[in-house]
Amino acid sequence: MTQIEHEFRSRCSIARSLEILGDKWTLLVVRDLLWHGKHTFQELQNSEEHLPPNLLSQRLKRLMDWGLVEREAYQDRPVRYRYMLTERGRALEPTLLGIMNWGHSHLGGGLFDPTLGKTVAGSSV
Amino acid sequence: MTQIEHEFRSRCSIARSLEILGDKWTLLVVRDLLWHGKHTFQELQNSEEHLPPNLLSQRLKRLMDWGLVEREAYQDRPVRYRYMLTERGRALEPTLLGIMNWGHSHLGGGLFDPTLGKTVAGSSV
Repeated sequence: MTQIEHEFRSRCSIARSLEILGDKWTLLVVRDLLWHGKHTFQELQNSEEHLPPNLLSQRLKRLMDWGLVEREAYQDRPVRYRYMLTERGRALEPTLLGIMNWGHSHLGGGLFDPTLGKTVAGSSV
Repeated sequence: MTQIEHEFRSRCSIARSLEILGDKWTLLVVRDLLWHGKHTFQELQNSEEHLPPNLLSQRLKRLMDWGLVEREAYQDRPVRYRYMLTERGRALEPTLLGIMNWGHSHLGGGLFDPTLGKTVAGSSV
């Protein structure tokens, strides 16, 4: 597994995790790769939250630097990449489910109901 | 429960949660209130990560605005507050545990080992 040199700000595993995941976008990229079948830059950019391209690019780079995501070229000239979660990235699934459950219970529900395990409103995210 | 008017950027409960929790500090404040017995501004500021006072103040305000934290004055002149999680805030415990487990497994361990349920190194966080 990837292990890069990094001086963590804390000995707390939560603080360490937040150095990588603690922003408004990173876990949405993980969500899209994990559950929504989105794997190209264009697909990831087209999510409902419209992650700005420069931020998406920066987040994907960080996720690759930390070994949560890997990519492979599926086209030359121009080169296009397909992004996939590694085992380390997929291991975030329980955390994503926890955040989804909390948000669904405490922020007025969302499009997907985790208690029913299905989408409860019209169009897809 | 508190319910404030807010235009969410997305119908995804994860994206909604990250509007409130998606930064490097907010969940550390929740951690300290939930597990570390820290309840005053000074105690929260003295955590290992040394949250800058202006950020701590802003995060506490946001947590109160969203009904995750409440406070009561325990002293007058100057007024001092004691901060406590509400039920909505305490409901983040499984999410915090998930983030801790992931960080412990994938970022080289931390001071507290969630698999043993105890601190594995010297001083306290």
